[in-house]
Amino acid sequence: MGQYIYGIDIGGTTVKMGLFDGAGEMLDKWEIETRKEDSGSKILPDIAASIEKKNGERGIASEEILGIGMGVPGPITEDGRVLKCVNLGWGVFSVADKVRELTGVEKVRVGNDANVAALGEQWRGGGRGFDNIVMVTLGTGVGGGVILDGKILTGNNGAAGEIGHMTMNLDGKRPCTCGKSGCLEQYSSATAIMRRAKELVEGTDRPSMLREHDKITGKEIFDAYKAGDEMAKEIVDEFALYLGLGLSLVSNVVDPDAFVIGGGVSKNGQVVIDVIKEQYEKNAMLPHKGKEFRLAELGNDAGMYGTVRMVLE
Amino acid sequence: MGQYIYGIDIGGTTVKMGLFDGAGEMLDKWEIETRKEDSGSKILPDIAASIEKKNGERGIASEEILGIGMGVPGPITEDGRVLKCVNLGWGVFSVADKVRELTGVEKVRVGNDANVAALGEQWRGGGRGFDNIVMVTLGTGVGGGVILDGKILTGNNGAAGEIGHMTMNLDGKRPCTCGKSGCLEQYSSATAIMRRAKELVEGTDRPSMLREHDKITGKEIFDAYKAGDEMAKEIVDEFALYLGLGLSLVSNVVDPDAFVIGGGVSKNGQVVIDVIKEQYEKNAMLPHKGKEFRLAELGNDAGMYGTVRMVLE
Repeated sequence: MGQYIYGIDIGGTTVKMGLFDGAGEMLDKWEIETRKEDSGSKILPDIAASIEKKNGERGIASEEILGIGMGVPGPITEDGRVLKCVNLGWGVFSVADKVRELTGVEKVRVGNDANVAALGEQWRGGGRGFDNIVMVTLGTGVGGGVILDGKILTGNNGAAGEIGHMTMNLDGKRPCTCGKSGCLEQYSSATAIMRRAKELVEGTDRPSMLREHDKITGKEIFDAYKAGDEMAKEIVDEFALYLGLGLSLVSNVVDPDAFVIGGGVSKNGQVVIDVIKEQYEKNAMLPHKGKEFRLAELGNDAGMYGTVRMVLE
Repeated sequence: MGQYIYGIDIGGTTVKMGLFDGAGEMLDKWEIETRKEDSGSKILPDIAASIEKKNGERGIASEEILGIGMGVPGPITEDGRVLKCVNLGWGVFSVADKVRELTGVEKVRVGNDANVAALGEQWRGGGRGFDNIVMVTLGTGVGGGVILDGKILTGNNGAAGEIGHMTMNLDGKRPCTCGKSGCLEQYSSATAIMRRAKELVEGTDRPSMLREHDKITGKEIFDAYKAGDEMAKEIVDEFALYLGLGLSLVSNVVDPDAFVIGGGVSKNGQVVIDVIKEQYEKNAMLPHKGKEFRLAELGNDAGMYGTVRMVLE
């Protein structure tokens, strides 16, 4: 008899699905579409059907399934209830109970997507060897997850680790999707630096390598930064200023063993760590200086690994 | 046979000592001087002698002592080592081992003073009924303690909950004792508001009730604020602006069940909560709004209670 775990990460466009063995090794992965129509009511049945299909293909019996882990892009309580998830059209209900009902699998663990990605990185990725990490995901927004003693810190409203919505600039005029302004993700997300580049390229006539590109993403910005481009430096400096400051504030609260930096922007490699760390050290108090910074390693698989870790806990 | 616990809170001037029963009820409390000469080497022997004397007075046998809890004004690791404590003249050593050696009591638990005060308030004070709180102590500085699942969050270098040294103002010219500038405690400690009052009274000729006092402490400032004094309002507004913002950032990281506000400034009562909460709500993201704020209740006894809780864990 084998032992299997399904690790599932629900995104706004696709659901990432992984089959793992009982030791947490990935055996297979695939994606299905996230069908958001009818208030997202098709999403969990689609997942259950995909699990059943995979069980059939591989001849997996239901008693061989140790559990199902699931990441959801919204606030999740410790017992697996979602507190509204605008992205998927979901209201408030127990995701864990629904998945149990649909699959017949008793052990279902559900976490917020940024949190399960953080747990995955702590368990098998850039945070390996550290019990207490804070992961920051630099993508469309700035996501965060706090892992303490190898476990997700969920928070009272499932909203611990909301690093991206720290108010970094009281005078910040940049409105945020969350309804506030001056949030970290308005300065340090991939979206933010791309928007800033566009503003500077279109709004000024300053010379810059960035003008050579039709589309300026984080890659073009960091490449130009490394080449000494002044405009790119201004963009990267602002990105790093607020992110370094923000992570120093995180240290004041939880004093983690390490920070893990992930998301699209982190694919630019060590330079990203270097610029963040320089600003972090300026604002960190003495006992927080010299903190470890690591790049995330699992990419889009981090969330799946994290949900599997929750099942194995 | 009785059951007794000693709860001890070491301060820079006095050591607060408490005798508790096995259920955590305080039976007796007293203070001894903190003798800091000879690099603070007399402090722990003085405490051990005071315990021995109390045992003699009350006829307590050593096997009736469940344990000793101790709060220390410096960073402490989870296993009870102090990582330098400038206030007491201490370097790096195991406080727990030293107390075991001096008293013969095996179960010794040591925590940072702000952290044990937070734990005391969570267990028996203003944070009763909440598992996850962040306590902020507004005194000479701004202290902090993070309690998660009823336990102190220590942090990698014993420096979690260092709320007072969050950099709140990048342009802040006010130097802090920690070596940085713009730290929260430079705006929101008792010291900070007293200094600001002095600056405004001596540096301007604006009318204010505050001019009627020889010495302006937090009490005079909050009394004048409640009476509608403009200068006091300016001082209280700045105090609340940074503290409310700072606590919103704390929510972004740990999303606690409640905040507990203690220290000398909190003795001014509900008005302190009201002004902090107003600014907190402005900066909190949606899932963090409406958070509970409570006044601390145990005063100077909070630390002793917290150390006893550590022994009982």
